Amino acid sequence: MIAELISVGTEILLGNIVNTNAAYLSEKLAVLGYSVYFQTTVGDNEERLAMAISAALSRSDVVILSGGLGPTEDDLTKETAAKVLGIECYEDKQVKEAITTYFNKRKAKEVTENNWKQAMVPEGARILFNENGTAPGLILDTKEEKHLILLPGPPGELKPMFENQVMKYLGEINPGTIYSQMVKIHGVGESAVETIVKDLIDGQNNPTVAPYAKTGEVHLRVTARADTKKEAKKLVQPVCAEIKSRFGNAVYTTDEKETLEESIVKLLKKHDLTLATAESCTGGLLAGRLVNVPGVSDVFQQGFVTYSNKAKRKLLDVSKSTLKKYGAVSKQTAKEMAAGAAILTGADVAVSITGLAGPDGATKEKPVGMVCMSCYIKEKNFTKEYNFTGNRQKIRENSVVYALSLLRHSILENYETKK
Amino acid sequence: MIAELISVGTEILLGNIVNTNAAYLSEKLAVLGYSVYFQTTVGDNEERLAMAISAALSRSDVVILSGGLGPTEDDLTKETAAKVLGIECYEDKQVKEAITTYFNKRKAKEVTENNWKQAMVPEGARILFNENGTAPGLILDTKEEKHLILLPGPPGELKPMFENQVMKYLGEINPGTIYSQMVKIHGVGESAVETIVKDLIDGQNNPTVAPYAKTGEVHLRVTARADTKKEAKKLVQPVCAEIKSRFGNAVYTTDEKETLEESIVKLLKKHDLTLATAESCTGGLLAGRLVNVPGVSDVFQQGFVTYSNKAKRKLLDVSKSTLKKYGAVSKQTAKEMAAGAAILTGADVAVSITGLAGPDGATKEKPVGMVCMSCYIKEKNFTKEYNFTGNRQKIRENSVVYALSLLRHSILENYETKK
Repeated sequence: MIAELISVGTEILLGNIVNTNAAYLSEKLAVLGYSVYFQTTVGDNEERLAMAISAALSRSDVVILSGGLGPTEDDLTKETAAKVLGIECYEDKQVKEAITTYFNKRKAKEVTENNWKQAMVPEGARILFNENGTAPGLILDTKEEKHLILLPGPPGELKPMFENQVMKYLGEINPGTIYSQMVKIHGVGESAVETIVKDLIDGQNNPTVAPYAKTGEVHLRVTARADTKKEAKKLVQPVCAEIKSRFGNAVYTTDEKETLEESIVKLLKKHDLTLATAESCTGGLLAGRLVNVPGVSDVFQQGFVTYSNKAKRKLLDVSKSTLKKYGAVSKQTAKEMAAGAAILTGADVAVSITGLAGPDGATKEKPVGMVCMSCYIKEKNFTKEYNFTGNRQKIRENSVVYALSLLRHSILENYETKK
Repeated sequence: MIAELISVGTEILLGNIVNTNAAYLSEKLAVLGYSVYFQTTVGDNEERLAMAISAALSRSDVVILSGGLGPTEDDLTKETAAKVLGIECYEDKQVKEAITTYFNKRKAKEVTENNWKQAMVPEGARILFNENGTAPGLILDTKEEKHLILLPGPPGELKPMFENQVMKYLGEINPGTIYSQMVKIHGVGESAVETIVKDLIDGQNNPTVAPYAKTGEVHLRVTARADTKKEAKKLVQPVCAEIKSRFGNAVYTTDEKETLEESIVKLLKKHDLTLATAESCTGGLLAGRLVNVPGVSDVFQQGFVTYSNKAKRKLLDVSKSTLKKYGAVSKQTAKEMAAGAAILTGADVAVSITGLAGPDGATKEKPVGMVCMSCYIKEKNFTKEYNFTGNRQKIRENSVVYALSLLRHSILENYETKK
């Protein structure tokens, strides 16, 4: 089946916000087995919105509109959709109650007159209740067996509504079952990953293998279609197993929602290890990423940002002669930073990063992008040197992911049987 | 004049990447005085791409296509655009030379046969040379005085090409001159900003005032159109001055490219001050943000991530009784963290953050989102308590911006005349 997206909002057309809803919905639709051929963005303008809806209905089975369901006069999506389909709207009691409850819960000032506009529902529509806002979502089935789905624009309302209510509906109207699994790989470049699994990407269409490149990571989504979930799963699993065997420890999870930092915190907890960090060019971003994980305080309690040589000496006990002989950006300094952080805090494991993020400070021997990192574990150092490309931001982001990657590999090598 | 965007790429339709080009181009077009009514995304498919181009040309003056100019067979944008306009392509010598030079510079493996496809140019097209890749951009003027602009998809190629070559062209074909200035405000909520300047946003159309909300910041873009740049500037300046007088120190810059952290690093340098950071719930993100600024090492040399009480005591000298009496998330602890960081490192200024980012750990008195921060300067503490909403990520991002904001205000109050 073919699906199409229409994002409604003048703020997208002005470039005030990036349209992340379109990427989110497209990825979900791909997983559900829908093909998306067009994404359109249009403003809060009745004529142009009607034009976009008509064009979409003429060429796609499912049209998902997001945005323009708010309480103001500018919000026209519902009214325009009903007009295009020739349906009247009525005030829905249940929706009105839900809005009242929403406001009461938040002890909000009185419900404004405007808000009752959101209780108006096109005849025959299915209502998608909104736990995170006042605009209900709507599903309208047309005589031509097309499906128009209206969702609120804010991602905090759209995503839970899509996942809890719309996905089930889309599964029902699309015959066959889709099963999909993600294999997440860290510390291997995008083109290297694609080369290694080229035969799996090119050679198959059920399951399909699609790469999603993130900074320092590549996620491979394996998706199959079959009559039952069991059959689809059966198609997916051997391909996942094949990918895992090709990448070994570079695969950190097959759990859709698990992040690299979560997998590391899990691993630290499993082996009852505590961690410290010591950062120079990344200036706290590595620690900041670890602290993303709820409950990280059991294993990660302290970190150092030592941007100057003085701070490296004073806070981490890096020796003056090392700094002088090898420089702040060197494997030797990285080693001493990690060792210092572990020893001074009493942590079991420490990881350090020191590098040149640019744009200044490069020499012939040490170009911008040169980053050294070390993991101190069981009184040994595991040290790496990289040459990252891109701007300051990109170099630092890559440094963080590759340091997490080094940390993960070091723990596995020291605490688990090599796979 | 009306402009329209067509993004070409199956990877956008699959949700593999977020379409940031559309937001970038839309904002630039708004500044240049173009109205954008539609943004369309379509895959690398000749029929659907031709359909999108024809629809766009029928309703807009300028159509900007991005993506699909690569060397592979899948890349069809140029060929399809030429077909829709009924123009033949020829091999352009200059482009061929530029591609050869590009490869030679990078000492790349031989140019593949595929790459010569990128030297084919539609008759009569203006060529936009690409310093960051092999795909040239193209401008095609139609008999109906419409303009088709083809740009490469990678943002690292599209942005410089747009800024260095396309903006000038768009200025030439759109009569009148546009002048625009940004006023950047920190530490004031989006709806508060909009209320304060509602009269300026609603009441005027030359200049216009458009708000762009970022986390913890609001940027107001003031744009005017006139016959000359001087006249346009004259319209913009009093409105900018009015905004600045309404927000005082909350305005940190009117420089389009300056970030909040840059404005703070500048201020620290101006007053010859050094800075230290002490972070709990943000776990290094504040330091990481400061280290974003090239040359920050002159003023920022060290920071602490003290996630546990033990680390707060050991690294920052927070007293045991304070932690016991008031808890880790309290104004008192924040004060001692900042004072400790300044005193222990010898920095002139220190800023601390301690809070509950959730999802766990909340109590009746201390809900998730409660964040305390303090700035220690001239032996005094300036301390704030906030209740942020949203998820863990959002709470932490807000904490970082509001801590930067507190830092900026504290420096201004202590080192510059109050405005």
